[in-house]
Amino acid sequence: MIQNDRLLKALRREPVDRAPIWVMRQAGRYLPEYRATRQKAGSFMALCQNPELACEVTLQPIERYGLDAAILFSDILTIPDAMGLGLQFVEGEGPQFAHPVRSQADIRALSVPDPNEALRYVMDAVSLIKKSLNNSIPLIGFAGSPWTLATYMVEGQASKQFHHIKHLCYQYPQLMQMLLDTLTQAVSQYLLAQIESGVDALMVFDSWGGILPTTAYLTYSLQPMQRIVQDIKAKHPNMPVILFTKGGSAWLEHIAATGCDGVGVDWILPMSQVRERIGGQVAIQGNLDPAVLLCDEATIIAETQALLDDFGNHPGHIFNLGHGITPDVKPEAMAALVETVKSSVNDNRFFAVDQSN
Amino acid sequence: MIQNDRLLKALRREPVDRAPIWVMRQAGRYLPEYRATRQKAGSFMALCQNPELACEVTLQPIERYGLDAAILFSDILTIPDAMGLGLQFVEGEGPQFAHPVRSQADIRALSVPDPNEALRYVMDAVSLIKKSLNNSIPLIGFAGSPWTLATYMVEGQASKQFHHIKHLCYQYPQLMQMLLDTLTQAVSQYLLAQIESGVDALMVFDSWGGILPTTAYLTYSLQPMQRIVQDIKAKHPNMPVILFTKGGSAWLEHIAATGCDGVGVDWILPMSQVRERIGGQVAIQGNLDPAVLLCDEATIIAETQALLDDFGNHPGHIFNLGHGITPDVKPEAMAALVETVKSSVNDNRFFAVDQSN
Repeated sequence: MIQNDRLLKALRREPVDRAPIWVMRQAGRYLPEYRATRQKAGSFMALCQNPELACEVTLQPIERYGLDAAILFSDILTIPDAMGLGLQFVEGEGPQFAHPVRSQADIRALSVPDPNEALRYVMDAVSLIKKSLNNSIPLIGFAGSPWTLATYMVEGQASKQFHHIKHLCYQYPQLMQMLLDTLTQAVSQYLLAQIESGVDALMVFDSWGGILPTTAYLTYSLQPMQRIVQDIKAKHPNMPVILFTKGGSAWLEHIAATGCDGVGVDWILPMSQVRERIGGQVAIQGNLDPAVLLCDEATIIAETQALLDDFGNHPGHIFNLGHGITPDVKPEAMAALVETVKSSVNDNRFFAVDQSN
Repeated sequence: MIQNDRLLKALRREPVDRAPIWVMRQAGRYLPEYRATRQKAGSFMALCQNPELACEVTLQPIERYGLDAAILFSDILTIPDAMGLGLQFVEGEGPQFAHPVRSQADIRALSVPDPNEALRYVMDAVSLIKKSLNNSIPLIGFAGSPWTLATYMVEGQASKQFHHIKHLCYQYPQLMQMLLDTLTQAVSQYLLAQIESGVDALMVFDSWGGILPTTAYLTYSLQPMQRIVQDIKAKHPNMPVILFTKGGSAWLEHIAATGCDGVGVDWILPMSQVRERIGGQVAIQGNLDPAVLLCDEATIIAETQALLDDFGNHPGHIFNLGHGITPDVKPEAMAALVETVKSSVNDNRFFAVDQSN
């Protein structure tokens, strides 16, 4: 059994002494030890593909800050890379595909990669991290949502207006569905393989669902994620799954109704409002604006405490940022955040006390 | 009086034979006649600063499509340019300021420009357009919101993470307020001068309010816009004002409560939902995803009709896109959109008819 099980308890909305904390991209460029390991690896993809080094960077923020969960160091685009699209990371430009998906023939040519073959390096990293953690804290596995993967695959790179994918989506909905069907199978198999390799919880990152009108979001982004939740729960009913749509404030109830255990939220809504809307059904993960970590220690502490107070003494809060931590954050800023959450133990948690007595 | 007053009626939520239509950036690069005039002007800023040419491009989409409103051809960054920040448009890079605001001293040094001096070219363009329109349709004047202007001024250019402005906002809230106070005065005076020069309605573009957490949005983006609405209504109680926060779905009720007449919405929410939330208080402007205009005619017609049907037979709909029309749209696509809205006359509009008779 896992020694520090705050995350797993919070995902079941059971009482915990304080909110568990982990941070998206906690193993990242803001840490000097990460930059050293990445340099040793040669490139970002080489780091992802080397299980020993991926394990090393996964553990770095755990060792430095004593966080309540580790998350597999990898990238959401490993699946399209395994499909043969030729992923490369251009410095300052973000991810690019050598062979973007731009035609019906391109979509038909895609096949679901065997996660234990083409993505063996991910499974090896999971096994190694799990062994190294020695059941001290849970390990979170993850994947990109089918819609988000499709967006990168069709655009070929990060986009501002998303015209290629939106053209596909509005003009050729059946082709869009065909692409999403393939990706949904691929993501489900990938996450199931991560479970076999040892992860304790799963998260699906939907970076680009927020660019869609509601009907299109529900059809092309949320429905595939719901199928993934169902695929996982069919084989592993107790495996917790967190869904996170950046920019998804309008659809919280729909996301919570998928059967997932936790919903990640960006920083737009106050936590009290998110909790009122969906806190009765799911755990809520978030949602400090990462830009707060650019401020001085007093401001970081004040903003973090305000967020904890706003969520209040209710079950099911997993503290996190509303998006990944950025490379320009000082490691001391992250320390101030983590210490504030860790010192927020509240003996009254889940007990209603009459303050007048 | 204005001959085609559908826009003004819709802004008062009075019955109209069909929804009025205009389109953000309707005078823009998707039109060959616009590209010709811009080439003649030499640069985008030269075009803005030449009243005759600004008038010429303002009228081009009116002549081609017979729209229900003209909007002044200008840019939201004319105010910071008039403050001496040195605006330039770099091809493919968007707007940049030679002297971004990066210190307390920079903020203190700013002064409110006299719109009839430094921005005389805008007022001259308004007068000329108004005269040329000869009261056929209303002319909309506009400005950027103080928050949006501050964002560009502090970042110095378009940004992805907005770290400079967010640092100012979270770490130095009083300095942020000082900057916003100056900009609020500047925007109010600028819009009042546009009224004196002849515009029939006003719109405030808040391009970047949507990057903020709720509390910060209400304080730094919405409150200055509310003060502008009050400043305008104090002198011109019947002048209609439209507020548009891109990514503002979460705050519609707050925006509608400012005293504005219309609320612009992006494409995230279905119009029926927006109408249910705020349609009893304000007119609603929007909200087709501009990317629909990349599709074939049948798709454009179907999506446009679906949006009209979704809003339904209720007062106060101003048809528009959810964001500016993009340069890659074919002029014929815009024609299909406009014709669909124009042919949507509904004799039953505002009459409840028992369909069983």
